[in-house]
Amino acid sequence: MFQFIENGSVTSAKGFKAAGVFCGIKKRKKDLALIYSEHSCTAAGTFTLNKVKAAPLVISQNVIKLDKSVKAILINSGNANACTGESGYDDALKMQRWCAEKLNLLPTEVLISSTGVIGQRLPVEKIQIGLDDIIPLLSVSGGFDAAEAIMTTDTKIKSFAVRVRLKSGDVTIGGICKGSGMIMPNMATMLGFISTDAKIEKYLLQDLLKETVNISFNKISVDGETSTNDMVILLANGASGISVVKNSDDYSVFLSALKAVSIEMAKSIVSDGEGATKLVTIKVSGAKTKSDSDLVGKSIANSSLVKTAIHGADANWGRILSAAGQSGADFDPAKVSISFNNLPVLLPNYTLTLDEELASKILSQKEFEISIDLGEGSEETTWWTCDLSEEYVKINADYRT
Amino acid sequence: MFQFIENGSVTSAKGFKAAGVFCGIKKRKKDLALIYSEHSCTAAGTFTLNKVKAAPLVISQNVIKLDKSVKAILINSGNANACTGESGYDDALKMQRWCAEKLNLLPTEVLISSTGVIGQRLPVEKIQIGLDDIIPLLSVSGGFDAAEAIMTTDTKIKSFAVRVRLKSGDVTIGGICKGSGMIMPNMATMLGFISTDAKIEKYLLQDLLKETVNISFNKISVDGETSTNDMVILLANGASGISVVKNSDDYSVFLSALKAVSIEMAKSIVSDGEGATKLVTIKVSGAKTKSDSDLVGKSIANSSLVKTAIHGADANWGRILSAAGQSGADFDPAKVSISFNNLPVLLPNYTLTLDEELASKILSQKEFEISIDLGEGSEETTWWTCDLSEEYVKINADYRT
Repeated sequence: MFQFIENGSVTSAKGFKAAGVFCGIKKRKKDLALIYSEHSCTAAGTFTLNKVKAAPLVISQNVIKLDKSVKAILINSGNANACTGESGYDDALKMQRWCAEKLNLLPTEVLISSTGVIGQRLPVEKIQIGLDDIIPLLSVSGGFDAAEAIMTTDTKIKSFAVRVRLKSGDVTIGGICKGSGMIMPNMATMLGFISTDAKIEKYLLQDLLKETVNISFNKISVDGETSTNDMVILLANGASGISVVKNSDDYSVFLSALKAVSIEMAKSIVSDGEGATKLVTIKVSGAKTKSDSDLVGKSIANSSLVKTAIHGADANWGRILSAAGQSGADFDPAKVSISFNNLPVLLPNYTLTLDEELASKILSQKEFEISIDLGEGSEETTWWTCDLSEEYVKINADYRT
Repeated sequence: MFQFIENGSVTSAKGFKAAGVFCGIKKRKKDLALIYSEHSCTAAGTFTLNKVKAAPLVISQNVIKLDKSVKAILINSGNANACTGESGYDDALKMQRWCAEKLNLLPTEVLISSTGVIGQRLPVEKIQIGLDDIIPLLSVSGGFDAAEAIMTTDTKIKSFAVRVRLKSGDVTIGGICKGSGMIMPNMATMLGFISTDAKIEKYLLQDLLKETVNISFNKISVDGETSTNDMVILLANGASGISVVKNSDDYSVFLSALKAVSIEMAKSIVSDGEGATKLVTIKVSGAKTKSDSDLVGKSIANSSLVKTAIHGADANWGRILSAAGQSGADFDPAKVSISFNNLPVLLPNYTLTLDEELASKILSQKEFEISIDLGEGSEETTWWTCDLSEEYVKINADYRT
């Protein structure tokens, strides 16, 4: 029903162009990205739940709330424009207005987004000049440049797309995103921009995005931090001529494809988490309630002791069980079983002897799965996390220097 | 009204003896501690809220619940006897029974406690043999040996006492404790044993301990982990002949002294946290509700990004504000002010320019205070945390090897 496109990006869907340039906010690397659609898009967004919200996020959130149609997203890295007060808000408005003027759009047709250091004024005049450079570069092959320009401590470009076969024809969904510290549910310094050429009503688009974010971007943790700037935006420009409507077969297929591309994006963020050397899938099953399954997944994904044990390839299942135990979920520890990939390491009533060597071999891989079954019910969920390394500390102790 | 005693310990109060020996659970270091009172004690305890509870903890919790009078606490380090199922529970019962037999006590007069690796059978026969060594060593100067024998990754002995002047005479409160990873509210792999020679009714003793733990041991965080074995025990043997009764002046004085010694114990755990190089006091004020003040304190104390910034002496107040913002507390970020010691680094409406050099100088000290005023109300609280260093990762990646 859908398949991943090699070298897919936010420009894989028809009618989307993008570009990325260096405008001087960072010292050397690309720091300004623009995504543009010739056709007006319906737009959906999910935003940080942090009380402290960056100015550009507040502005973009309002655009989405007001049901405006959108044609462009302008993103800078190197400065979050967060905790910058009234002046920061003015800077963000300028960024939006200048971009609109130069593209002959209304300001409300432009979404804006920033990521980087908190609490410093955004050098917005650099963006003004950068706009003159970036607009002529907009192209259907510019998705990777845009993906590069939104990176902060990310080490890899994060870009994906899928082609989806619907009854009346094919549509495409593509996206770019960035991490890489401060990653936890409810958005982190995590930006995700997804585009599709399907034609989708605004209210439906928001439903699709919300359901998707809940099982992808909201199920990952690098360090349990929720940032001031996090957002995921989904634009639908209808350029394929194919509509997705509610309660149709196509709706389910489109949703599955959107979830698939979002999960790949989310996983790419975790595996490139600050200092991360391993990508770990955490499958929780046998929970009494959905909420219990999530509490356990989140607690394991966030546990410093689990994450350091993973880093050291130490088959310390006791820390996994203890993390589940402190999650607030209701279960009987004696009923729990835990596996690493297909190797059981704990069976109910603590009956299993651990094959340390085999277990440690699995934990030495770059990617593996930890499954925990609570033995209480039938609810389940999946989370993704990475290991906690000395490198994470190094990166974050000196972030601004 | 009270003063700290130099080289004070759990044996500073009249009628308490202690000892610590090596019995073979660890490779070389002391691993068995015994605290003993000639007089029967009323006993109070607070215990982990982790769903996964170690066998010795369950047994001790029952003794406290059943209002039994207590004469001894036997503690081993090197093995937590947690996640060990029915056999582990039997081992814990043996440990309690053997100790009682050799001291001519009822099993319910002995509290037991374990700390160390999770999920491995306790070599209880080593404790049986160790009891023959440790009982003859019980002495009023044995508090430090006991404090040493309960250590796991702790690098320092943690031992304190205060002398308290009450109307009818002096009483003493002394305690030993251990950390040092897995430290977070609601008890962590944190053990605390406090003794007093005041005479205090059981129900009152539990009230005193609960109120004290809430503002001391429950306000510290090393890594946000709550362990399976955490407990704080308070024994009162009445050997001073001085009673503390409810609603008296003495009650308030005693409570203040108990809080003071407990705060010192809690702080000693944080400052010796795994890999910790700094002890940071976090003062939250101006909160709308008590709960809001706690949410903010806890979130800052647990934030990996704040703790790594502290490690790098990086005056990144944005991370502090962001941690407050993700806490769930209700406040307007524009009203917040933040200080390092007495240096304001953020004033309301983000108006202050940061003196980076001075701020970084403060954060380079081994001990300092971060104050955050939410500007919303009058509730306040104090938390303690440490920095997050590469060393924490090293210790925990290889804990069992």
